[in-house]
Amino acid sequence: MADDRPIGVFDSGVGGLTVLRALRELLPLERTVYLGDTARVPYGTRSAATVEKYALNNARTLVQEGDIKALVVACNTASAVALPALRATLSVPVLGVIEPGARAALAACRGGTIVVLGTAGTVRSEAYPRALHALGHRGEVFARACPLLVPLVEEGWLAGEVPRLVVEQYLQGLPADVDTVVMGCTHYPLLRPVLRAALPERVALVDGAAATARELHALLAERGLARGGPAPAHRLLVTDAPEQLARVSGAFLGVPVAQDAVELVDVLMTA
Amino acid sequence: MADDRPIGVFDSGVGGLTVLRALRELLPLERTVYLGDTARVPYGTRSAATVEKYALNNARTLVQEGDIKALVVACNTASAVALPALRATLSVPVLGVIEPGARAALAACRGGTIVVLGTAGTVRSEAYPRALHALGHRGEVFARACPLLVPLVEEGWLAGEVPRLVVEQYLQGLPADVDTVVMGCTHYPLLRPVLRAALPERVALVDGAAATARELHALLAERGLARGGPAPAHRLLVTDAPEQLARVSGAFLGVPVAQDAVELVDVLMTA
Repeated sequence: MADDRPIGVFDSGVGGLTVLRALRELLPLERTVYLGDTARVPYGTRSAATVEKYALNNARTLVQEGDIKALVVACNTASAVALPALRATLSVPVLGVIEPGARAALAACRGGTIVVLGTAGTVRSEAYPRALHALGHRGEVFARACPLLVPLVEEGWLAGEVPRLVVEQYLQGLPADVDTVVMGCTHYPLLRPVLRAALPERVALVDGAAATARELHALLAERGLARGGPAPAHRLLVTDAPEQLARVSGAFLGVPVAQDAVELVDVLMTA
Repeated sequence: MADDRPIGVFDSGVGGLTVLRALRELLPLERTVYLGDTARVPYGTRSAATVEKYALNNARTLVQEGDIKALVVACNTASAVALPALRATLSVPVLGVIEPGARAALAACRGGTIVVLGTAGTVRSEAYPRALHALGHRGEVFARACPLLVPLVEEGWLAGEVPRLVVEQYLQGLPADVDTVVMGCTHYPLLRPVLRAALPERVALVDGAAATARELHALLAERGLARGGPAPAHRLLVTDAPEQLARVSGAFLGVPVAQDAVELVDVLMTA
């Protein structure tokens, strides 16, 4: 049994390409259709109600435009606030990145405090502490909003004095017994070297992309939804400025994408 | 003759409050209704077509919700790309901030190069060079996009090492004969001390807010649209997160505003 339909993936913008990359690496025979809501990025500073509305627009677009068999919410902020509404609305399985990120953190943690770095919306939602405690974590969880990291990454300032100082400012005053830091936003892995250099060596630095891919793999196997080949085609959709996604595709996705391979869609037309 | 209807002002978010402040100071008897499109901020990184669509949504909301007698586009990016569409659609007079900003630059310029700092969208539009040359400027115009300045201001990092380094990086390699710098984005006046400190003393640092207020004043007088009193009421509308506008109102508008005085509207319902 093989299900030829693609996996749908959406993000507020281009950051979710880091999650798409992990999915494509672990599941090389699956087709994917990615939607970056570049007309309304960022989500991290918006209210939960607005992020939920945007997430539903995106999901409906992927269902109608892509005929998807499963949905991966690659955006931490949307995963933090919109999963219940998405699951109530869609008939396909829906995966977020927060629970896999929490699993990755728990696997790395040696009993100390887990620190979550994320957007204001993700931190305010308390989705990571909730997920960590539901998974059995008994220690402390400390969450910090880092609003400037997304614009830094989008500006391409990934090294040098400015990112170093910004990261150091956000990491000031962490609990002394921190042993694990979660990059709770899909943009942050691009700043991994800067974060790594600013943290003590004993601290583990994790993100949920690979864990999300593994969870999707298990889900597809369980429900008989996996695809067996041949080599799949992929689609990339955006709601604005296809050239911006094309420009960062090398760094974020690991493969360069031509601008004319990125499709422009209007998510409101399918709402 | 007195026209009791309010002045409509819109911006991509909260930055336009610096323009609203100048309007209220020069025209203390005019009612105002301000709309911050905080559900879709920022505009500076989006395509011209998307900014034009958002500007039309906002303008229609102000006309239907506010019964305005004139519209001020307080956002430089929207002024740069959407004025023709707004003027073709609305029956009230429409003012942008770019021509007044260019006038302020021209008044300060002593024959050297004029440097415009703005968003990627404003710089790409070439609206400032066009306006400066149309007003008779014969020297050079040099425009530079500064994408990180808006998130810096929104994060409230207005002083210290990070803003200093970011500003210095954006000001690197300016033409040697620069004598005037235009703050071509409504957020930038909040960084005036940092910009001032990074520029040689001989360089004039200008923005278009006061010039926009003067132009509106003249327009209202000319068309018999001015209001004579009594002390006016003002409205503040946003498309998301009223608490964010309330939080920065002291710094941006000069007067603190309570969160429950900020109204939430849906701009798409009136499109």
